[in-house]
Amino acid sequence: MLIAVDAVGGDHYPERPVLGAIEAVKENNDLQVLLIGPKEMLNQELGRLEYDSNRIHILHAPEIIGMNESPASAVKFKRHSSINIGLTAHKEGRCEAFVSAGNTGALLAASTFLLGKLNGVIRPTIAATLPTINGISLLVDAGANLELKPLMYLQFAKMCTIFSREILEIENPSVGLLNIGEEAEKGMDIHKEVHQMLSELPNFYGNIEGRDILFGKTDIYLTDGFTGNVLLKFGESIPDILMHMLKITMNKERLDENTQKFVFGIIAKTMNSLNYEHVGGIPFLGVNGMSLVGHGGSSVTAIKNMILNAVRCVEYEINDKIVESLKN
Amino acid sequence: MLIAVDAVGGDHYPERPVLGAIEAVKENNDLQVLLIGPKEMLNQELGRLEYDSNRIHILHAPEIIGMNESPASAVKFKRHSSINIGLTAHKEGRCEAFVSAGNTGALLAASTFLLGKLNGVIRPTIAATLPTINGISLLVDAGANLELKPLMYLQFAKMCTIFSREILEIENPSVGLLNIGEEAEKGMDIHKEVHQMLSELPNFYGNIEGRDILFGKTDIYLTDGFTGNVLLKFGESIPDILMHMLKITMNKERLDENTQKFVFGIIAKTMNSLNYEHVGGIPFLGVNGMSLVGHGGSSVTAIKNMILNAVRCVEYEINDKIVESLKN
Repeated sequence: MLIAVDAVGGDHYPERPVLGAIEAVKENNDLQVLLIGPKEMLNQELGRLEYDSNRIHILHAPEIIGMNESPASAVKFKRHSSINIGLTAHKEGRCEAFVSAGNTGALLAASTFLLGKLNGVIRPTIAATLPTINGISLLVDAGANLELKPLMYLQFAKMCTIFSREILEIENPSVGLLNIGEEAEKGMDIHKEVHQMLSELPNFYGNIEGRDILFGKTDIYLTDGFTGNVLLKFGESIPDILMHMLKITMNKERLDENTQKFVFGIIAKTMNSLNYEHVGGIPFLGVNGMSLVGHGGSSVTAIKNMILNAVRCVEYEINDKIVESLKN
Repeated sequence: MLIAVDAVGGDHYPERPVLGAIEAVKENNDLQVLLIGPKEMLNQELGRLEYDSNRIHILHAPEIIGMNESPASAVKFKRHSSINIGLTAHKEGRCEAFVSAGNTGALLAASTFLLGKLNGVIRPTIAATLPTINGISLLVDAGANLELKPLMYLQFAKMCTIFSREILEIENPSVGLLNIGEEAEKGMDIHKEVHQMLSELPNFYGNIEGRDILFGKTDIYLTDGFTGNVLLKFGESIPDILMHMLKITMNKERLDENTQKFVFGIIAKTMNSLNYEHVGGIPFLGVNGMSLVGHGGSSVTAIKNMILNAVRCVEYEINDKIVESLKN
């Protein structure tokens, strides 16, 4: 199986995508990787590494889309970017999937535009993997669709259920609707309508509230992309804030350097248990193809795991399963 | 000045509201308190305490609205509740303000219904005091109005600016619009429209994101009540989650009991720095009167400070200032 990897996506290219690819082919004997990026840069990078040259290939893409570039114009004007060239290769059937730790907005725009939508899908979406004390939950929509129509909630619930079951291996993933209270009649009109619509799903738990999220009350949290985006960024800020506050407290308490180091170490370990890099990256759900995106700061391990996840998404035919589930 | 205090509001009545009232009159010689609640219960409670009986009075209200009661029906059917009787006394000019740590929804409904709106106000609102590493910020709307019209954002910004400046004593409070990105053209249509509308305010900072909140990037965060409610409840869950995760890490690391206690102590102190009980409670902004609400779990100190805050809101004539600012 050949997977295309954006070799110039994310905050640490080409080092991490290239190393991630090399590690991935070591773990799966049937896997080959097509690195997408400027040929010279990639040859130079590969030149100083040991790898199986029969299974790591290069596809030249001279342009690079920056992490902060405007998605629409980047996709439109950088026709020779790694994102456009990689997704086109996938569309033409020259590889089974495309993975990237690059500009999420540009990836979503290009994936939707180049690959099109799966049969029956209103809008593709992006979920986020959320660490909870109960394991991983999915938060969807994570910012792709700021406003949702009621039917989109239902479709997102079905698509995430399939991803969660097949790839995250959660046996019977439960779906919660993020709301301001538990009762069915809480929220705006759209939430009441969606609550009723979701009740037809066997795995619908009901409404959940902000305080339930980090406890992992359900495996899938449904919300609009505006709320989802604000919430995710809020959550991501917690470790930094905590370390900052801890420093102030410990200085006030006049703790010596060694004690401070010890406490910081415990907290860092605690925060790391929230680091689920074994998921690596997840696919845009609802596009007619397999395009995965990971965090810009992805480690080599995270990128390796995103590549291996892409293999599983293809092998488990999750797109066929999505199309089937949307028929009902 | 006479302030009415809901003596049966919150999770710890009548003890804490009564003690809070006794402490408040000790700190302000011009203050008298009218305790609202079942006469016998309050006489019994006061009977075992030392207090200045010339300055603590009782107004009988036989009914109690529970913390989880449906606001609409509680206000409608419990005509003799402490909330209805206290607010009616205020409306009739028998006291200068009403404060409660009770059912927020019922308090908002009754305050709006009984006191009416200030001149020019579209909808009253409730802000939440949010602890940040930079001090206190206000988050508005905190759940009273799930959907906002553009002009409501502007009015909420103006009302919170006045409260923040006069009562929280922040010299030149800045206003941020919660959005999915910093650029003016980010978000839904309503956010773009609101961004433009807010630009006329001298203290408008611009868009802020979820990750900026706990850093205290601005003194006032504007958002719709749906997002605000989800965010607040998410934030409130962090200390519990952290303690839970910390326990797991320390057990894994096989730390002895004394070391665990020490680390827990440091974290508890760190979390306590997020406890801003000196604000105590804040007023419903936009109602034609002065009605303040505090957290259900308010300590005696928090209730005392809510009462003293009510005095300041009256003395600084914040409602007159709000009406004036909405004219521009």
